[in-house]
Amino acid sequence: MEAGKFFDEKMSRRGLIKSVVGAAGIAVLASGGLVSLSKAEAKEGPTEKWPWPYEKLDPAKTAEIAYEEWYRVFCGAGVINSIFSQLRERIGEPYKSFPVDAFKFLEGGMSAWGTICGSNAGANVVTNCIIGPSLKGASEDGMLMGSEIMQWYSDANMPTYTPKDPKVKGEMPKTVASSPLCHVSVGKWMKATGKSLGSPERKDRCARVTASVAYHTVELLNAWKDGKYKTTGVLPAKSFNIPAQSNCMECHGNKIPTPPLAKK
Amino acid sequence: MEAGKFFDEKMSRRGLIKSVVGAAGIAVLASGGLVSLSKAEAKEGPTEKWPWPYEKLDPAKTAEIAYEEWYRVFCGAGVINSIFSQLRERIGEPYKSFPVDAFKFLEGGMSAWGTICGSNAGANVVTNCIIGPSLKGASEDGMLMGSEIMQWYSDANMPTYTPKDPKVKGEMPKTVASSPLCHVSVGKWMKATGKSLGSPERKDRCARVTASVAYHTVELLNAWKDGKYKTTGVLPAKSFNIPAQSNCMECHGNKIPTPPLAKK
Repeated sequence: MEAGKFFDEKMSRRGLIKSVVGAAGIAVLASGGLVSLSKAEAKEGPTEKWPWPYEKLDPAKTAEIAYEEWYRVFCGAGVINSIFSQLRERIGEPYKSFPVDAFKFLEGGMSAWGTICGSNAGANVVTNCIIGPSLKGASEDGMLMGSEIMQWYSDANMPTYTPKDPKVKGEMPKTVASSPLCHVSVGKWMKATGKSLGSPERKDRCARVTASVAYHTVELLNAWKDGKYKTTGVLPAKSFNIPAQSNCMECHGNKIPTPPLAKK
Repeated sequence: MEAGKFFDEKMSRRGLIKSVVGAAGIAVLASGGLVSLSKAEAKEGPTEKWPWPYEKLDPAKTAEIAYEEWYRVFCGAGVINSIFSQLRERIGEPYKSFPVDAFKFLEGGMSAWGTICGSNAGANVVTNCIIGPSLKGASEDGMLMGSEIMQWYSDANMPTYTPKDPKVKGEMPKTVASSPLCHVSVGKWMKATGKSLGSPERKDRCARVTASVAYHTVELLNAWKDGKYKTTGVLPAKSFNIPAQSNCMECHGNKIPTPPLAKK
């Protein structure tokens, strides 16, 4: 793991602070020479040590939790909680202190604006919290795994997962979004099926998409835990010279603008 | 505040648990009759009590921190940390336990895909963590404040904030994105200026956008703290029958598809 050194250095300083505080009591912190250390702690935050401990999860069980959670907190918080609720039980912190339900706002592509599909955003929150951010000298795998999931989502005939006991029975129509965006993903499905946003079928489609993304995220995290994860994720800005999806023509048609290339 | 009752009920149960644990020690939790309460805690998470404590912040100071943070963790984590780092110092938990740096992946519209501008995503994380999610019976103000910020961002001549000592001197060109998306926001600015993604000017523009969003977020949170916040935010899916931005023609031209309206 590339992040190893970075992590070890932080941990050793933290270990020292913890044992000093543990032995001498909290009052010392407020009254004496340890105040500066306390301030350093405040800057970093006790959960900002990566990677977070992870135990391999069952993808199907996770998908079932995500499916049910959609009907409570929708797509983004559904994906996060399908994974973090199990790790809260098995491991505890730092998962217990993560305010999963606050991420309900990821619904409908963030506050119903149709931007990034919440299940993609939720998956990115999960991979970046567990593997960690690509800070200087640290692994980029958290962000690249999130990127890989967005590409997989864009290409997949969604939803890929069928719950054991779905709320809407019968065949679920599937569509390819060719985009990680909620508006495009939901819009194409609504166009293909003629079902409205408020229909039980559309709701169950999004609950199943949430389950599908949770399933795949756990597949990738399990491979990472086994040391077998080789990312297919990329940072598109590097090749397109602008943060972008890879299918420019879908929105721009043939008139794709050329971004300024020279460093001017 | 609509969330009052919900919050009080949760708090009173939590208050009980806390005082029992405080008096009797942690060992009781593992060995006796309180285990079931402990499990309930694990499900909810100790930071999932809303609203989080908040103290009014200085918008300009916050913007300065956000500007500097962009050069370390980019837009999303920059907005979050500009606010949470001050509240970590002033209040402590639950801000200390929030893994701010993990949100570096919001850069470039999430892993450089150009979806939601990270500063908008970061602002939504902040408002929804502090005010809380729109769970059943709770206030929608966290999500609506996030939505209001996205609309403000789309309409503003950005960047609105000028740092006291900017890294790139001289006049900073401003553009209106008419969108909360990174690709559109950055793309319009690059087209107007002819500056490349890698140019110091483009980087400083995005650092200033981050500062601008942090500034406005604190303005709104301060009004909320004073009990004077009246949201202008909306959930666009309600009026458009699909999660969407409000300027359909910008992407669709005159051929705006009509989403299925009947509940079928």
